[in-house]
Amino acid sequence: MDFILIIGALLFSLSSLYFLFTYKGSQKLNVPFLVSFITLISYLVMWQGNFVTLNSNGQELYWTRWIGYMFSCTLLMYTIAKSIKSSQSMLTNKVYLTVLVMFTGVLASISESNFMLMFFAVSTFAYILLIWPIITNKLAYKYINYFIVLGWSVFPVVFILSPEGFNVITQPVSAAIYLALDLFTKIIFYVANSKVDLENKDAELSQ
Amino acid sequence: MDFILIIGALLFSLSSLYFLFTYKGSQKLNVPFLVSFITLISYLVMWQGNFVTLNSNGQELYWTRWIGYMFSCTLLMYTIAKSIKSSQSMLTNKVYLTVLVMFTGVLASISESNFMLMFFAVSTFAYILLIWPIITNKLAYKYINYFIVLGWSVFPVVFILSPEGFNVITQPVSAAIYLALDLFTKIIFYVANSKVDLENKDAELSQ
Amino acid sequence: MDFILIIGALLFSLSSLYFLFTYKGSQKLNVPFLVSFITLISYLVMWQGNFVTLNSNGQELYWTRWIGYMFSCTLLMYTIAKSIKSSQSMLTNKVYLTVLVMFTGVLASISESNFMLMFFAVSTFAYILLIWPIITNKLAYKYINYFIVLGWSVFPVVFILSPEGFNVITQPVSAAIYLALDLFTKIIFYVANSKVDLENKDAELSQ
Repeated sequence: MDFILIIGALLFSLSSLYFLFTYKGSQKLNVPFLVSFITLISYLVMWQGNFVTLNSNGQELYWTRWIGYMFSCTLLMYTIAKSIKSSQSMLTNKVYLTVLVMFTGVLASISESNFMLMFFAVSTFAYILLIWPIITNKLAYKYINYFIVLGWSVFPVVFILSPEGFNVITQPVSAAIYLALDLFTKIIFYVANSKVDLENKDAELSQ
Repeated sequence: MDFILIIGALLFSLSSLYFLFTYKGSQKLNVPFLVSFITLISYLVMWQGNFVTLNSNGQELYWTRWIGYMFSCTLLMYTIAKSIKSSQSMLTNKVYLTVLVMFTGVLASISESNFMLMFFAVSTFAYILLIWPIITNKLAYKYINYFIVLGWSVFPVVFILSPEGFNVITQPVSAAIYLALDLFTKIIFYVANSKVDLENKDAELSQ
Repeated sequence: MDFILIIGALLFSLSSLYFLFTYKGSQKLNVPFLVSFITLISYLVMWQGNFVTLNSNGQELYWTRWIGYMFSCTLLMYTIAKSIKSSQSMLTNKVYLTVLVMFTGVLASISESNFMLMFFAVSTFAYILLIWPIITNKLAYKYINYFIVLGWSVFPVVFILSPEGFNVITQPVSAAIYLALDLFTKIIFYVANSKVDLENKDAELSQ
């Protein structure tokens, strides 16, 4: 288990440095760097294990993961809201919903049986409210929808299969899948995003 | 005790759905829904009881209630600040003060004797700073003042009488009063508010 | 130890009242008052001791101090960002970095040996990113740079010498130094700042 968490910490150290030094536009918010840096801290906390608790079967629960996502996903939402030109109110709405999704994720992680399902249902409900306007927004780039629907929506599936949920897969297997999803949504997403931005600029310039 | 908390969770599930589906204005922040949804989560957490702690008399302390109010009351403040046309700075001020009122409320909940009184005093001081400009604002609608002074100000009175304070009333009695106050300030307030908004629009149209 | 914390609570009670009643400009954010008020609450929490934990040597760890700084330093950053006319994005960036510096400060406080050093390194890295644009900004007033470099940068030095770090100085000695730094950066800074503001206004008027 520690091996996967250390790999995660190393990869997000590297991506933090990469996004910090390749960043252009000193007056803008460096979202990719902050997201990688927050994820690095989240992996260090899970590796350290001070906040790992045990469920009634004696299995380790890594509920701090969802605190990390609370901070990083509000920033991801910021990027997406900017790209689809949401109003300030809609951004505030998305930030509140993201915090509620992740906070009820923490509650589901540390709960068992019916309460786990109840908090999972509340979290999923908030998640649907969060992504609904993004999926149905015609103005949004197709690849962003693709990333969100295929990327983000796998997280709750892994949760429900993991020891925090119905205990179908082990903690190391779920940690490995979470790491793959983190790489996909927090590194590959931004690298792909920056390339599309450049293409858009080329298109604008050639008009 | 659980009975009151389950009733609370059910009522705020219904009000969440009501405010979600009766909402008009897709580019605005749906404050009534978010407030009800946060209150639902708060009641589920109290019902579950994972975070309930015991004081030196062995009485249960529901300090998470004030965390829920921290999130919902910052949104209530947002609505009020908008309705009395506060500046961005005043809104930030109100949000910080609300967080401090509720955070010192948590601290008072888990403290006893002199420290309880000290944190209660600090919380009350911040609360007075928070509502002072609202009470004295001539521009504010009278009914908003009425709601705030009669609604919000009962919460600290219940606190000081409850087992968290001087232990005059029992935990179920205080929970029932808190539930009535929650219904008043988080459901009836918004329903009344939306009707007044309509009346104002009618008044504007007839001019 | 308690003696130092009580002195801190008393001094920040007085400075809260001072900044509250000498404040002019009712539509602006009263940052000096809020910073003093937050610091007062932080000292009360440390005095109460409910959240004080013990390390493996049985020494008391006052990790809540860094939660207080998380709230007060985001406001100090707000003041500085305004004074050097940062954009909204840069302000958001600074607020996130301040939260990360202080949050990893909490993690370093409750960690030992290698994990303490790891979180301390991450915190210092975020701190350097935070102050770098302020130090190198030619537009900033010289005295602000002076305050930040000489004031803020002593905090991590005290940390690394204290029982939370390498245990070179005792907890009461480090608490006394932290108190002196708090007075310097949270009271003297604002009193000096307000005098410079007046001088600038005089200069503007005489032009």
